[in-house]
Amino acid sequence: MLSQKIIKHLEKLDKKKYRAESKEFIVEGIKGVTEALKSEMEIALIIMEGNRRDESEFASIIELAQEQEVPVEFCGRKDVGFIKNTDTFPGVLAIVDQREIDLEDLAEGPIICLDSIKDPGNLGTIIRTADWFGVHNILLSENSVDPYNSKVVRSTMGSICHVQIFESTNLHRSLETLKNKYEYKIYSLDLNGKKLSTLKPSPKTVYIFGSESHGVSAGLDELIDERYTIEKKGEAESLNVGIAAGILLSKI
Amino acid sequence: MLSQKIIKHLEKLDKKKYRAESKEFIVEGIKGVTEALKSEMEIALIIMEGNRRDESEFASIIELAQEQEVPVEFCGRKDVGFIKNTDTFPGVLAIVDQREIDLEDLAEGPIICLDSIKDPGNLGTIIRTADWFGVHNILLSENSVDPYNSKVVRSTMGSICHVQIFESTNLHRSLETLKNKYEYKIYSLDLNGKKLSTLKPSPKTVYIFGSESHGVSAGLDELIDERYTIEKKGEAESLNVGIAAGILLSKI
Repeated sequence: MLSQKIIKHLEKLDKKKYRAESKEFIVEGIKGVTEALKSEMEIALIIMEGNRRDESEFASIIELAQEQEVPVEFCGRKDVGFIKNTDTFPGVLAIVDQREIDLEDLAEGPIICLDSIKDPGNLGTIIRTADWFGVHNILLSENSVDPYNSKVVRSTMGSICHVQIFESTNLHRSLETLKNKYEYKIYSLDLNGKKLSTLKPSPKTVYIFGSESHGVSAGLDELIDERYTIEKKGEAESLNVGIAAGILLSKI
Repeated sequence: MLSQKIIKHLEKLDKKKYRAESKEFIVEGIKGVTEALKSEMEIALIIMEGNRRDESEFASIIELAQEQEVPVEFCGRKDVGFIKNTDTFPGVLAIVDQREIDLEDLAEGPIICLDSIKDPGNLGTIIRTADWFGVHNILLSENSVDPYNSKVVRSTMGSICHVQIFESTNLHRSLETLKNKYEYKIYSLDLNGKKLSTLKPSPKTVYIFGSESHGVSAGLDELIDERYTIEKKGEAESLNVGIAAGILLSKI
């Protein structure tokens, strides 16, 4: 049985403000917890439904946790109501420390920059796709969805543990620094640029994606070196931002 | 005010069985209804919130509807509770006839085939992306989500009106027909194929995508001419099916 203290802590971790204060977040499910254990992330605690501890995937998690001296608490059916984030509690979750990432940590290799992305599923899918293509630097604007939101974490399918996310408090200034101090080029993907097929990828590039409804913020215009567009042959008015990012990532 | 008959009809159109019987579906919102009016789809009725009829986008819809002799019924605030599919009724919806599509209608140009896709958002996004790239032939397996489901329709952002969807009752047989009678090649996208960069697109090709959890059904193996894989450079285990379809569509 879980202590009241842990249950309270888990409940509070559902709130952005508390996650920001405690610098922790929750990863749920076998895949997510396993990826967290295999990654460089620090894990504060694993919570597992006790009656599943003998199932092979759960047993492997316990073994990995023991190797790394990560504590595992078992919970009963009764606790599940308190701790589940999804309708069906997947039997295991981990409380994971958010990595402290500075802007200069990103300044190596291409950077995916997301400006005002509000949809958790889109952000999660972009992180997962970036991870697939080996792009590990993610720069988020100040008004984007919290990357440690449970829906985002879930839709990254464990990839949240493989990327470095810098949450800017002033994207304009962050981009300026990348440009001036680290000699990055700033490219944006929007509807009025050069053909994406003419893009010559180079490592020191920031690729900016704006929100589906408003595109890249006008305030960033002066910083953008080139604009690219995914060539359209049909009638749809726009592409989903996750799809656009996926297509770009497949090219760089 | 809407008649009880119309309100009942709208409520029932929320059910797959009734949609299949009536061969109709609902398109919501300014963008969706405008696209439906501009497309070849037949529209049975447009329903609009009366007190918005003077707003310019609503007025344009009324004008387009009049040109095409599509009836428009106005409704009041009170009716909205009955008819809304989304939390905020976007002020206008259309009852649209499902186009009758035969397999042979698809047999021109590339075909996107979706095997057991259950997630409405994924299906909608794939339809929208296919439309962007000018691929208008969609073949759905018997156990996929209903393409006229309100969530699918919404996430196509109007593109549902630009594509031809054939809902197979036996995907194996449909693919056999495309192969033998129409000389199509069958390519699948999965995790153990040749590099996607080696793909040479040709118009008479069916591209199959399987479900995220189970991939392309094993029963279709014998029909598949080539398997392709999106090259992975990082650590993610898989790509979202919508992203995979987007990357393939950008190449063909």
